[in-house]
Amino acid sequence: MQLRLETLEVNARHPFRIAHGTKQTYRNTLVRIEHDGIEGLGEASPSHYYGETPEMVVEALKTWAPHLGDDPFAFDAIDARLDAVLQGHGAARAAIEMALHDWVGKKLGLPVWKLFGLDPKAVPLSCMTLGMAEPEEMERKLDEILDFPMIKVKLGGPGDVDNLKRIRARYRGKLQVDANTAWTASDAVRVLHEIEPLGIQLVEQPVPRGDLDGLKYVHERSPIPVFADESAHHLSDIGLLAGRVSGVNLKIAKTGGLREMRRMIHAARAHGLQVMIGSMIETSLALSAAAQLAPLVDFLDLDGHWLLEDDPFDGAPRERGVLELGDRPGLGVVRRDGAPAA
Amino acid sequence: MQLRLETLEVNARHPFRIAHGTKQTYRNTLVRIEHDGIEGLGEASPSHYYGETPEMVVEALKTWAPHLGDDPFAFDAIDARLDAVLQGHGAARAAIEMALHDWVGKKLGLPVWKLFGLDPKAVPLSCMTLGMAEPEEMERKLDEILDFPMIKVKLGGPGDVDNLKRIRARYRGKLQVDANTAWTASDAVRVLHEIEPLGIQLVEQPVPRGDLDGLKYVHERSPIPVFADESAHHLSDIGLLAGRVSGVNLKIAKTGGLREMRRMIHAARAHGLQVMIGSMIETSLALSAAAQLAPLVDFLDLDGHWLLEDDPFDGAPRERGVLELGDRPGLGVVRRDGAPAA
Repeated sequence: MQLRLETLEVNARHPFRIAHGTKQTYRNTLVRIEHDGIEGLGEASPSHYYGETPEMVVEALKTWAPHLGDDPFAFDAIDARLDAVLQGHGAARAAIEMALHDWVGKKLGLPVWKLFGLDPKAVPLSCMTLGMAEPEEMERKLDEILDFPMIKVKLGGPGDVDNLKRIRARYRGKLQVDANTAWTASDAVRVLHEIEPLGIQLVEQPVPRGDLDGLKYVHERSPIPVFADESAHHLSDIGLLAGRVSGVNLKIAKTGGLREMRRMIHAARAHGLQVMIGSMIETSLALSAAAQLAPLVDFLDLDGHWLLEDDPFDGAPRERGVLELGDRPGLGVVRRDGAPAA
Repeated sequence: MQLRLETLEVNARHPFRIAHGTKQTYRNTLVRIEHDGIEGLGEASPSHYYGETPEMVVEALKTWAPHLGDDPFAFDAIDARLDAVLQGHGAARAAIEMALHDWVGKKLGLPVWKLFGLDPKAVPLSCMTLGMAEPEEMERKLDEILDFPMIKVKLGGPGDVDNLKRIRARYRGKLQVDANTAWTASDAVRVLHEIEPLGIQLVEQPVPRGDLDGLKYVHERSPIPVFADESAHHLSDIGLLAGRVSGVNLKIAKTGGLREMRRMIHAARAHGLQVMIGSMIETSLALSAAAQLAPLVDFLDLDGHWLLEDDPFDGAPRERGVLELGDRPGLGVVRRDGAPAA
């Protein structure tokens, strides 16, 4: 297999602020895997929060390139070879795995969701994310997304509760909140009781990612279902989270790919946990990859498409809050600029 | 999709006795699903222990037949339709799901393990099962299988420990034992300490299937790793078994198919549980279906092939204790009698 890399500069419509920091331009990496005349595409969205940089992603991909072998179907054997030379690097790993899935789907002439035997009618709605902002800016951003059926509000700063009240006063759809690890367990319980009357569907990651006891503390006292996000990277995390949360938010850039994500979904179901599929700031390429597993989950946060100024790909995400799994083979993604072989 | 049924009369080489009872002839059902000029095969092995009879299997299959629809790829949608008219009936359900997998693999020209992205080199050895018997008969049966690398001895009757000592005196390979729910928790702990010096790899289902506290009691006190079998049917069981056993023995006739089995394997891994794939008394057809997931597990008990007097199929099981996943499409199974389209 031949691996080629391209820089994907991704610009958000607005500076995107969450409890971890603010960004507007993202440097993702496009992974192209060519074999037997077919090209599979993947996208790596490095996460600053997890210490990943664009340069590190490229280095990891170059380190792995000679070990891909010559059989794109051999996911487990490829996994083992890549692990043997370099572990971790979820975003880069996910990009390779996306490209392999895209390749296999194109080779067989089938969309990946169909290869997985999933039901495209079972795709839930996606929320739209509202980053942190000063009140006036928040109002402007809210104006743009009032027609979405579900909004996720980033919390974890001063004025959280007042912001949320202002949003609820104008927005009648479903509301979720995400603290991105910003709170202590006792603060979380206090805030969650305070915002409960606003009708909040769920709260993500109220406490630091390693604070499993804190998650449990909040889970047992919160009037709002608690989901883990930063605490849920790998399959073994599900074992630790069982009994400590109501659900998990999974992202392929964390899990390292669709296969680990699927394993985690099944493990979560063994405990009756609810499951959300989330995303980083990424194009329709990575979003369409994640969307392949959408029929298996309860909630989607695949909104990057709507957050971007420019999306070089046309893939699964469609109308506001509604994703559709189409019949195109592989990940179902084509370049908007009509570049060849992609 | 067109569903056709045939009776598969299966004769064991010896009367097969376990703690639940004795049998020599088994009436399994061959399921043939035809669509678009391709036929997929499956096999239902009803379990008396779970209240299934051959007649009940046929009735369930006939009930489901009109709801199969016209897309063999649509596993999840088919599952939902079948569940809506009749739940349970694991053996019959597994047979349909096997036939669908066989069909899809044949349609795409790929073995099912390859569609799943698995590594055929990762298949573990299979044990060979030694049913309960009087000492003299036991010696004769042992003679026939001394060259297997791993033997599983059925326990749960009088003279267990003496039998096992006699076996160990002549057999140097790995030994597993299976009580098939025969013991109380305290008896189990006593017997397991008594047989520990014989070098026993693991013990299956020491206590009744509903006795989860008993499993935990034994697990915490046993010098031999405890596996659940009769207690492990569905994904939700894994959540209950986590922390109560060292591993689980999964069988498609219990789980209702490969997909639920795979979900259970992943859930088990989230808790660091070991996994065995087991079997009923069945032909190489059902065994080859189960073998498709063999690269994901630690132990195999896919020995039906060697227990049978006559096997109408040629599939995955090969040399004594060694299974190979071949390159034939679908489940990789052909009829020995050369009957058409199978």
